[in-house]
Amino acid sequence: MNPSNEKLIHARHTLAHLMAAAVLELYPDAKPTIGPAIDNGFYYDYEFPTEKPTEKELKDIEKKMRKLLPSWKDMSGKEVTEAEAREAFKGNQYKLELISDIIAKGEKITLYTARHFTDLCRGGHSESPVKDIPADSFKLSRIAGAYWKGNEANTQLTRIYGLAFETKVALDAYETMMKEAEKRDHRKIGKEMDIFDFDDDVGPGLALWLPNGAAIIEELEKLAKETEFKGNYVRVKTPHLAKESMYLKSGHLPYYEDSMFPPMEYEGGKYYLKAMNCPHHHKIYAARPKSYRDLPLRLAEYGTCYRHEKSGELFGLMRVRALQMNDAHIYCTEEQFADEFRAVNEMYLYYFKTFGIDKFIMRFSTHDPKKLGEKYVNDPVLWKKTEDMVRQVLIDSKIPFIEVPNEAAFYGPKIDVQVWSAIGREFTLATNQVDFSVPKKFNLTYADKDGIDKTPLCIHRAPLGTHERFIGFLIEHYGGKFPLWLAPVQVAVIPVGDAHMDEAKKVHELLRSNMIRSEFDSSNAGFGKKIRNAKTANIPYFIIIGDKDIAAGAVTLESRDHGQIGQLKVEEVLSKIESEIKEKK
Amino acid sequence: MNPSNEKLIHARHTLAHLMAAAVLELYPDAKPTIGPAIDNGFYYDYEFPTEKPTEKELKDIEKKMRKLLPSWKDMSGKEVTEAEAREAFKGNQYKLELISDIIAKGEKITLYTARHFTDLCRGGHSESPVKDIPADSFKLSRIAGAYWKGNEANTQLTRIYGLAFETKVALDAYETMMKEAEKRDHRKIGKEMDIFDFDDDVGPGLALWLPNGAAIIEELEKLAKETEFKGNYVRVKTPHLAKESMYLKSGHLPYYEDSMFPPMEYEGGKYYLKAMNCPHHHKIYAARPKSYRDLPLRLAEYGTCYRHEKSGELFGLMRVRALQMNDAHIYCTEEQFADEFRAVNEMYLYYFKTFGIDKFIMRFSTHDPKKLGEKYVNDPVLWKKTEDMVRQVLIDSKIPFIEVPNEAAFYGPKIDVQVWSAIGREFTLATNQVDFSVPKKFNLTYADKDGIDKTPLCIHRAPLGTHERFIGFLIEHYGGKFPLWLAPVQVAVIPVGDAHMDEAKKVHELLRSNMIRSEFDSSNAGFGKKIRNAKTANIPYFIIIGDKDIAAGAVTLESRDHGQIGQLKVEEVLSKIESEIKEKK
Repeated sequence: MNPSNEKLIHARHTLAHLMAAAVLELYPDAKPTIGPAIDNGFYYDYEFPTEKPTEKELKDIEKKMRKLLPSWKDMSGKEVTEAEAREAFKGNQYKLELISDIIAKGEKITLYTARHFTDLCRGGHSESPVKDIPADSFKLSRIAGAYWKGNEANTQLTRIYGLAFETKVALDAYETMMKEAEKRDHRKIGKEMDIFDFDDDVGPGLALWLPNGAAIIEELEKLAKETEFKGNYVRVKTPHLAKESMYLKSGHLPYYEDSMFPPMEYEGGKYYLKAMNCPHHHKIYAARPKSYRDLPLRLAEYGTCYRHEKSGELFGLMRVRALQMNDAHIYCTEEQFADEFRAVNEMYLYYFKTFGIDKFIMRFSTHDPKKLGEKYVNDPVLWKKTEDMVRQVLIDSKIPFIEVPNEAAFYGPKIDVQVWSAIGREFTLATNQVDFSVPKKFNLTYADKDGIDKTPLCIHRAPLGTHERFIGFLIEHYGGKFPLWLAPVQVAVIPVGDAHMDEAKKVHELLRSNMIRSEFDSSNAGFGKKIRNAKTANIPYFIIIGDKDIAAGAVTLESRDHGQIGQLKVEEVLSKIESEIKEKK
Repeated sequence: MNPSNEKLIHARHTLAHLMAAAVLELYPDAKPTIGPAIDNGFYYDYEFPTEKPTEKELKDIEKKMRKLLPSWKDMSGKEVTEAEAREAFKGNQYKLELISDIIAKGEKITLYTARHFTDLCRGGHSESPVKDIPADSFKLSRIAGAYWKGNEANTQLTRIYGLAFETKVALDAYETMMKEAEKRDHRKIGKEMDIFDFDDDVGPGLALWLPNGAAIIEELEKLAKETEFKGNYVRVKTPHLAKESMYLKSGHLPYYEDSMFPPMEYEGGKYYLKAMNCPHHHKIYAARPKSYRDLPLRLAEYGTCYRHEKSGELFGLMRVRALQMNDAHIYCTEEQFADEFRAVNEMYLYYFKTFGIDKFIMRFSTHDPKKLGEKYVNDPVLWKKTEDMVRQVLIDSKIPFIEVPNEAAFYGPKIDVQVWSAIGREFTLATNQVDFSVPKKFNLTYADKDGIDKTPLCIHRAPLGTHERFIGFLIEHYGGKFPLWLAPVQVAVIPVGDAHMDEAKKVHELLRSNMIRSEFDSSNAGFGKKIRNAKTANIPYFIIIGDKDIAAGAVTLESRDHGQIGQLKVEEVLSKIESEIKEKK
């Protein structure tokens, strides 16, 4: 955590307390429960036994907060006994329950006070709120229901959200971004552009990709396949299910069972839909004996995985139950690891460039040596070696990264890739993992130069993440205006009138015979309407054909992004479009 | 059935009886059970209570059959009472059980006799065996176990198989073909060429496609996608499962349940793996309102379907539980039907040409007007119309076809496509169906020109069948020697010695950067061994690089099929290979 970040988080935390104090002045019987700092602001959950605020009253609470702020000092904390704590919060069953939780964990109880307001808290507040929190840098944004402790079986409380930044400028920028994000909402554009749909008979979280969505998928897969071919990957294809024994071997069962689809009872055993591709790829590795000459072996597949997500947590393409993953597993020796990892990073950078992703960061999660053999595989030498290598490669590649201790996977260091869309929203796209444990469970070996069987390392990588999340991201990133190579419909051919239909059809057919996704509007709608339709559909190029064009043996080209281009020979248009597709402009 | 075919079937049936007579002379206590004519010959199942013949004794039985044949007349039949029949077969519990079965069905009992041999039979024998069955046109081929009535719970009997043809030439040709088929067995070549594998932890019938298999899959899909794009298909992508309600709607449940994987109990309902893609495609059709302008709509997907096949019936890639199907559904009006169906046939012909399939036939299954409303949807006008159209298109396209009455699907006429491999073996590759019933169940409509909502027809088509069956067929068809465009490895680059490694590597990298599947043998094996390995792997081209080549600034090209080609500039080789791939030579 960098210091300025910490200051902002403390300010947000302070604002949560400040809001609770303001709420209590306006709603004296309210019972505050918990109020943490979160990304972009803070919230506090309350029970309102009698009168409840609505969206409208947020302004009043906000006003009250601003009134309290000038006299709000750094909160002073002190350790208290259980009895003292219970006395301070008598009548608030939520706080009393939290006190019991703290006692049960054998932790200390601390109370923090500012003005007349005291809260149960672990601390971490702004040291000089008046200076650190400009009165116009925060606002209350939203009121919503929330279950006590997040459990649907518990009482429903009222959650009030606030936004808070270092300055008003930052707050405004965030709100502008969110307004733009709403316009670019992938569910809204996905519907308007006929990209995907869900259906009750198919099931929640199981996307149906309409032709326009499938066209994007095809282009993404083509890109991945070409890029991976050049990176000397080989492709494989595996079933979407496997027997229970496979997942007992991989260790996914029983620990991961809650995240998997329930089993099919079949032929006296159980079959599970796959929740990840690794075990199948390990089986492909194991299908033939391997020697050091076969390594590195890079097995790639756009594998579809099925995962149970709670229905309440499903969200458009962002949280789904079927995921088509740009997956690959690289089996290599320790000596090959750094080069392989470097090549993976280069592939990321190539993709970022291709998609115009300018801002990204890698979160590099490492192990904690104190937890070896417990939270982490007990192989201190290999941990040190691979983490050093990963760190060095990240530094060499000049990829921005932050290192997060004690968040690695059980079996090796982990890298989460975070990117920012064109409007500045953050997305977690993909995860890479180094794995020096699971290959052993599957008895994967290679005969080394010395004739001895050794276990390879395995790198799990998926630079384009899943189609679902990546296309969801791209919809927002491009605001639906996909670049030519990726656009579901690349060209609209529009005759000015009925007299130009035949010529327009010929041009359309020429484009299609060159594998360009052209659409020909032969409807009897007026010319203006046809142009408007093509624009609404975000089609990158329109080819217009009227009298003057036919007279000149040419067509008129217009671009979605650059407006009128002019009259050109049809062959010129074709070669211009073809070269722009090839260059992924 | 054509007359010559019937004669052959009668001869085979006669030979089954003749074998039983011969067996009884050699093994007097044997109990013959049933003995039908089959494809390519006949068999008879026996119980041998004491001495049993082995493979070795087949020659003796065959000799005895040839001895009996000259005095074997047309079998004379007569109807008998149950008591007479029971008397004739007393001591043979199998025949007695068959008699009970006949009685239970209320059918007549007939016995047929030749020489001293009498059998329970429905007739259908050669009228002049001596003339119709040349003594050298048949042979006994195999002895195997077989359960009484095919039920594993029953006694195991001994089955003796015979081959029988019209002439010795035809018999020899068949045996030669079968010997060749054994060499080309897709399971054997699939293993040798690392195309696919099965794994116990994954499950029977669930193929793992190794890199070489996936390379073939990729090429087939590329071909299908390009061909379908040119045919104005659009692609879609659908999940591999759906809720029970979907399959109740489609009518697959409960009737087809035995052929599906068992359900997953999920969120209080049931989910099933899809056994076909149609319902999902119907949902995509229904996702947006349609007008006559949207038709024909051709939705294509390489969808993976899961079907329960009994474990005893699984057979390599030919009978599997996961099928990747070259599927598409064409939604069209009645007026558009003939053109659409014609285009489908043209696509078949294009594929047959591409794969060098010279012999093929379409089995056109029609309805039986007497069974309308019972076995067939009760729409006599539409049956007549579509069957007439299908027939006319088949005639116009000059595609060989046979018409099979009363074998249509419930919801429309059906066409099974049968092809013959290069060695003359027959395969059923694909099925097309015309469907004028299911779209109604899914409420699929389009607004017609007159503004009225109408239901489209649907053509189900899958010209390349499934990857599993088609690749199984292609392995036999090509004997593993895949044409260049389809070969898993297209070029082997082989340095003559260590001094030529660098140059060879450069050539290999040049090929790969041009998307050619090149393999570079950098091992320390000798030159001869490297060449042999490349030949065993059926690689279409070898590029050899030695001193003379480097001196000449060239390489030596050799072809798997045409031997030495000679010294060429590397650019010439590249352009030759590229153009052959493009032309699918």
